[in-house]
Amino acid sequence: MSTLDALTCPVPHNETERVLLGHGSGGQLMAELLRDVITPALGGSGVLEDAAVVSVGSTQIVFSTDGFVVTPRFFPGGDIGSLAVNGTINDIAMRGADPVALSLAYLLEEGLPVAELRRITTSVAAAAGAAGVPVVTGDTKVVERGGVDGVYVTTTGIGVRAPGVDPSATRCRPGDVVLVSGPIAAHGMAVLSAREDLGFDSGIRSDSRPLHRLVCTMLHTAGAAVHALRDPTRGGVASALNELAEASGVSVELDETALPVARQVAAACEILGVDPLHVANEGCLIAMVAPESADRVLAAMRRRPEGAAACAVGRVGDGPAGRVTVRTLVGSTRVLDMLVGEQLPRIC
Amino acid sequence: MSTLDALTCPVPHNETERVLLGHGSGGQLMAELLRDVITPALGGSGVLEDAAVVSVGSTQIVFSTDGFVVTPRFFPGGDIGSLAVNGTINDIAMRGADPVALSLAYLLEEGLPVAELRRITTSVAAAAGAAGVPVVTGDTKVVERGGVDGVYVTTTGIGVRAPGVDPSATRCRPGDVVLVSGPIAAHGMAVLSAREDLGFDSGIRSDSRPLHRLVCTMLHTAGAAVHALRDPTRGGVASALNELAEASGVSVELDETALPVARQVAAACEILGVDPLHVANEGCLIAMVAPESADRVLAAMRRRPEGAAACAVGRVGDGPAGRVTVRTLVGSTRVLDMLVGEQLPRIC
Repeated sequence: MSTLDALTCPVPHNETERVLLGHGSGGQLMAELLRDVITPALGGSGVLEDAAVVSVGSTQIVFSTDGFVVTPRFFPGGDIGSLAVNGTINDIAMRGADPVALSLAYLLEEGLPVAELRRITTSVAAAAGAAGVPVVTGDTKVVERGGVDGVYVTTTGIGVRAPGVDPSATRCRPGDVVLVSGPIAAHGMAVLSAREDLGFDSGIRSDSRPLHRLVCTMLHTAGAAVHALRDPTRGGVASALNELAEASGVSVELDETALPVARQVAAACEILGVDPLHVANEGCLIAMVAPESADRVLAAMRRRPEGAAACAVGRVGDGPAGRVTVRTLVGSTRVLDMLVGEQLPRIC
Repeated sequence: MSTLDALTCPVPHNETERVLLGHGSGGQLMAELLRDVITPALGGSGVLEDAAVVSVGSTQIVFSTDGFVVTPRFFPGGDIGSLAVNGTINDIAMRGADPVALSLAYLLEEGLPVAELRRITTSVAAAAGAAGVPVVTGDTKVVERGGVDGVYVTTTGIGVRAPGVDPSATRCRPGDVVLVSGPIAAHGMAVLSAREDLGFDSGIRSDSRPLHRLVCTMLHTAGAAVHALRDPTRGGVASALNELAEASGVSVELDETALPVARQVAAACEILGVDPLHVANEGCLIAMVAPESADRVLAAMRRRPEGAAACAVGRVGDGPAGRVTVRTLVGSTRVLDMLVGEQLPRIC
């Protein structure tokens, strides 16, 4: 479903309503499903966070779960196994915690080649090994043909957070500098280009990688001056910034000229008519950092390989609350909304 | 697939091999898939436990994940939402831990009525509330029609274990008394009877319920004398006992006359030709308890509603290692194996 289709097909919220593919986008429909159906049913007063903090005695445990349904399962720069490991590690890192263990739940379709399961599991192990975060427990279910499209993976992780550290979506402050750790939109365009029916080979590789060491460096450098961290996965940078701006009651202004987008990625976005700000990332983060610490954090980020291309891309303003704008190349300003529906289904 | 079909169709282990429905049974095929494919690829030296213990400083965190694909999603005595909550709570309790938080990952099929999602989520919340274990984080993915059969749920939980407590599959000792907390085989037969095409209404209800308070009572009563705990889900009591006997290098002898099976459940098993020892449970546990503590533990279990029908059903012997036998009603002895393949697909 294109953005426009989604915009012109608003969904009534009533008892005959059905779940749409767009509800899985990480955009506005997803936010509504969470706000109107899932969170109230769970008795939650607020938004379900991607990662929660659970106090166990004096220890802060960060806990996060994520399902992966990406298609195709193997794409340039990764596969569903490494993506699942890195994705969950990153969700934990975004709350300022050091990930310590992962669980792995497989849903397998009857008829899946065992060799493919072995390949995916080997990739899980390699990603977990590279990140230094072991898979300690798991579950495997098999359903009949047609009950799953091959393999789905749900990873859950636990991490430990040091006292005094609390990056949170609610802690963005006017004046904060918006940092991004690397070029955006690579993951979504890599997966899209790997879908055979699109018929182009772009040479674009997913940015899937773990970011917990980068986060550790940032927190070591500036501690509580790192106000918020977010990995802009489904829905891209646009959704992540809208969520942060809304949660903190601030505005954000981005500078389009400063946004790092690799040349081939920008070209592929242009061909397909998608905005790189709406495309999923799996290996870069957004940070909102107090202005007096921003330069130091940026310099520290650039000393790590996964932060080598980090840059400052905008500022937090004092309102209107929830408003994200982009100063464009030609000097005008446009409002940057979340996607309403689904731009790229099954991107992660 | 019936047990017999599975027995007469051994699966070659080679690169043309495919995942079979029987690999999801919790029986011998599943054990082989874990042993031959998943565990080696993850670099594991042993068996992946259903729940792992992760040390965080001086705190022992117990961590467990489980996917739920039960069909139908609503059955007498429960539904996929409450089943997922209780199932994960029970996996954590079986390692002697007190569950403190759950995560909830949904896989939804495009077209699912939102009302059904609300009903399932309300059931998740009710089960979590009744157990006193909150759902603190989650994830929702939507896939196109045919990519999932309606709704699948993956729950993951964390719990905290008191020092000095360590019930483990490896700690069964010769002489231990085998206790079971209640009537067996109700869950599997309830789900089976709810499948319309079987066309019988048995009045049987699933035993799905949380067992962590029962475990707390048992550990409070006898501490480390509770050597092993297991909830006999997929593969039933037979698989659970075979796993325990193998992990501890002991034999187990069950007394068939002592096994609690409700009358309607026994009748339904007889009609369908299945052994209640192979049928899934979701609300009873097996405990291996040191003989000098068994009576005290049994008395304590019976004081709780979920343990009211607890009884002693057998003894641990000193070998042959891994051998489970049943002394039958007529006084003969038969070997009780794991199921090889799948008896009841998608039972949980």
